[in-house]
Amino acid sequence: MTETALDRVRRAYARIAETDRPEIWIDLRPQAEVEAEAAAVDARVTGGDRLPLAGRLLAVKGNIDVAGLPTTAGCPSYAYRPEADAPAVARLREAGAIVLGTTNLDQFATGLVGTRSPYGAVRAATDPDRISGGSSSGSAVAVALGLADLALGTDTAGSGRVPAAFNGIVGVKPTYGLIPSEGVVPACRSLDCVSVFARTLPEAQRAVALMTTPSALPASRPARRPGPWRLAVPATAGLGTLAPGWAEAFETAAGGLASAGVEIHPIDPAPFLEAAALLYQGAFVAERYTAVGAFVEALADKGDPDLDPTVASIITAARDLPAHRLFADGERLAALREHALSLLGDRDALLLPVTPRHPTPAQVAADPVGVNSDLGRFTNFVNLFDMCALAVPAGQVDGLPYGVMLVGRTHADDDLVAIARLLQPAVRLAVVGAHLSGQPLNHELTARGARLLATTTTAARYRLHALATEPPKPGLVRALEDGGPENGAAIECEVWELPAEGLGDLLAALPRPMTLGRVELADGTNVPGFLCAPEGLRGAADITTYGGWRAYLRSLAVRG
Amino acid sequence: MTETALDRVRRAYARIAETDRPEIWIDLRPQAEVEAEAAAVDARVTGGDRLPLAGRLLAVKGNIDVAGLPTTAGCPSYAYRPEADAPAVARLREAGAIVLGTTNLDQFATGLVGTRSPYGAVRAATDPDRISGGSSSGSAVAVALGLADLALGTDTAGSGRVPAAFNGIVGVKPTYGLIPSEGVVPACRSLDCVSVFARTLPEAQRAVALMTTPSALPASRPARRPGPWRLAVPATAGLGTLAPGWAEAFETAAGGLASAGVEIHPIDPAPFLEAAALLYQGAFVAERYTAVGAFVEALADKGDPDLDPTVASIITAARDLPAHRLFADGERLAALREHALSLLGDRDALLLPVTPRHPTPAQVAADPVGVNSDLGRFTNFVNLFDMCALAVPAGQVDGLPYGVMLVGRTHADDDLVAIARLLQPAVRLAVVGAHLSGQPLNHELTARGARLLATTTTAARYRLHALATEPPKPGLVRALEDGGPENGAAIECEVWELPAEGLGDLLAALPRPMTLGRVELADGTNVPGFLCAPEGLRGAADITTYGGWRAYLRSLAVRG
Repeated sequence: MTETALDRVRRAYARIAETDRPEIWIDLRPQAEVEAEAAAVDARVTGGDRLPLAGRLLAVKGNIDVAGLPTTAGCPSYAYRPEADAPAVARLREAGAIVLGTTNLDQFATGLVGTRSPYGAVRAATDPDRISGGSSSGSAVAVALGLADLALGTDTAGSGRVPAAFNGIVGVKPTYGLIPSEGVVPACRSLDCVSVFARTLPEAQRAVALMTTPSALPASRPARRPGPWRLAVPATAGLGTLAPGWAEAFETAAGGLASAGVEIHPIDPAPFLEAAALLYQGAFVAERYTAVGAFVEALADKGDPDLDPTVASIITAARDLPAHRLFADGERLAALREHALSLLGDRDALLLPVTPRHPTPAQVAADPVGVNSDLGRFTNFVNLFDMCALAVPAGQVDGLPYGVMLVGRTHADDDLVAIARLLQPAVRLAVVGAHLSGQPLNHELTARGARLLATTTTAARYRLHALATEPPKPGLVRALEDGGPENGAAIECEVWELPAEGLGDLLAALPRPMTLGRVELADGTNVPGFLCAPEGLRGAADITTYGGWRAYLRSLAVRG
Repeated sequence: MTETALDRVRRAYARIAETDRPEIWIDLRPQAEVEAEAAAVDARVTGGDRLPLAGRLLAVKGNIDVAGLPTTAGCPSYAYRPEADAPAVARLREAGAIVLGTTNLDQFATGLVGTRSPYGAVRAATDPDRISGGSSSGSAVAVALGLADLALGTDTAGSGRVPAAFNGIVGVKPTYGLIPSEGVVPACRSLDCVSVFARTLPEAQRAVALMTTPSALPASRPARRPGPWRLAVPATAGLGTLAPGWAEAFETAAGGLASAGVEIHPIDPAPFLEAAALLYQGAFVAERYTAVGAFVEALADKGDPDLDPTVASIITAARDLPAHRLFADGERLAALREHALSLLGDRDALLLPVTPRHPTPAQVAADPVGVNSDLGRFTNFVNLFDMCALAVPAGQVDGLPYGVMLVGRTHADDDLVAIARLLQPAVRLAVVGAHLSGQPLNHELTARGARLLATTTTAARYRLHALATEPPKPGLVRALEDGGPENGAAIECEVWELPAEGLGDLLAALPRPMTLGRVELADGTNVPGFLCAPEGLRGAADITTYGGWRAYLRSLAVRG
């Protein structure tokens, strides 16, 4: 019932071709090479290896080493060929993920726009008239368009969150140091984090967990205050100018969390926002010169066209920032952090918009530095304060994705995920066959963060079939209305609750003749569930009398 | 029997006048004011307050706030009058310590020599032809000369250890952040620690404990590997040029620790020493410009004679250090630290000389920056690596004090003290009266780090008297040799072991007619102990028949 890795790779390359967004990629690997790798993963799975990411398709930001591909950091002249994968990439590959290629970015990860690259400006996934956001532009759009399941970005000031918000996906900026940053071209080495994009929270969380160095986790954390989650939420009046409709969208997200039982506590965001401003107005940007300044200056002297002019001017200007100012900014930052954390108090997290607006390429071109700085208004402080953050979709404004951000203290990563899940509408799903607990496809539910709500039966109005597939699949169909009660029976089923974001994925992978539709339960309520399309019943055995799929399987075992 | 605080203050002022070293002090408080404060402490003690530092005399480095005195940082033009004591000072005062005044220092705590001050160059306590060391010059010499019991310094690169070594006293550089540094003129704020000078380890340790913010201590530390202490000790060949006799003195100290049961493990000190060199050769010095650079430049422009020319040139030159170099140095430092700590491995501490030599003022004048930098060869890295350190006397070379330094990981402070105590020769002391366990003066032993070795009796050759003092004191005298056994008796006594460094203090405070002399124990061995001078026996009652002071006191209680 599950696609093979090879199937998934073929589907991805077909979709990449259809999509026609070559600027997403810096180096897309040759399909044949990736197919061979996928076949090897399939063979391992068949051989019994348990690979949690078997066949998950991975895109890697072009400033992260992938063995065999050049690491460009968005600058062709900078390219080098790494001998090994960055540890973050290697850990995902060991788990069965398959790298499709490296993705475009704002050069040297310097930007939040996605337009600062000689490989082309990346446009938003759902509206090519808007910027993709950056600097992890290609990675975010590859995931948003379904070309990859997962992508790695980097996040120094928001590069892993801004493009997530602009493209309607999840972006995780983990606590600094959890994921190794070896094999990553540094932007500001003391702030850089490898970040993760995915369409669903569980997929992103699983990747983060697989890349995390166990010894980087704290031995223990103080127990949280019991009771409901406590969330600090600034009044939108304190957030500065927001695009039309964006304040309302933010308040809707906060209201949704309140409805889900989260306590909302007003907070003054001033010290957070002041720290954000320090990142580009202050001396911290000098760390970008430390990383690549000498290289960029040499290239600028030669007039190399590979150099993005905005990036080059930012990095070379950082040469002259004095060290004494850096210490002064560090002291100011420490004071702001102390004040900000005292305002956060005993709240579990802070809710903020990801950005104040979603610009067009023309707006960026008109004011490349000003628009970019404004995009970091809510994201910049997170790395400076050594906090963690999570950008999640929160509906749409004017037909464009809208995202909010949860920000937590160092090592509060899991709390952010738990709170974010409350933002996501959950759906219930009735399952009668291979998705039941303990059955072969149950992991498709648990991997998407589903939990078992109830073990029950359908209303006494269904018939269950063993389809003529190999292996046989269960086919649930509703009995004819006028056939009377004897015409249907109560079929064993489980009701699972699944984050709604996971449903699309599940549906995309659903093989014919399985369908999702409304199922009536024993208590008369109706929930979505797995059903069978009529064409599947051809040649199927009616197994309704067994009362359920498990009982039918047991009878086979007895016979066999 | 104990001196009052008032007595101690009067004695200190007399000694300060005799000593005639006015350059030690920047502001010595008026005697009458200090006497009034001492009288208030005495009244509190009489009233039953338990003040662990009652009457201990405290000198405070001139860059630390003392309410009522100007904070100068060694620069008269910089002076301001703080409204409150620095928290470190306040905590000692709350415990009964009495501030005598503020002490001289290398201006803005920039130096390890003690000569960079418009208030005069401070000379070493025992040899005025040598420098005192700095920057906490006056504080160290005030303690070494017995003018104060305790002094506060600051330590950014060795300022709390170099002058300890040059003046034969203890200098503690605690783990960063344990003692609050509010109310201290910053040198390099991210490295500055308040440090403590004392003549004995227990006195220094007690002061550190009283100033430590409890919440700054870790909730727990990993248990140390069981067994003997394990000490990393570099071969002197790896330490660079040392003054004649200094390598031998270092090896003698290491040998002394080995004899006391400490395991000695050779270690390569290279990454420690390379980090030390980074402090002054690198960009970290820019933090001094952040602290006082604008002020110093303005003063230099006016040609203010208050400004020390060497200090001014160091601080103003730091203005031009670029921030990108600071980041590069930080990365280099992190790599050196990781390497250095891996070399330290599971050893409890590292033993190093404090300095490579002890210069004369002429040598400093000939090469003010070079000599100063060389003095920090072994001390500079400690703060950069976020480690703790302890300088302790280790004998003499050519009649001058020689000091060694124990360096430990963050929060290993107590381990350093425990190891350092093994360097100090211990003496045994027999006590028969008010110093017995539970008796009123027993704290004079325990406060000096003594521990009870045995409860026994003297040989049967002593007579015990109740002296005609108020209250009566016990007077132990040896019976006449030719009087035969019936002429003497075995008197109850305890044998305590006391760090030898504490004995001088105890002797200095010993009131007539008490003496210290040789006492024969029941087992025939002889140990030093409390005796009574002949003049004390006039009018005394012979209480030998009671067999001991406690039995005599009980008889008084019964009678009374």
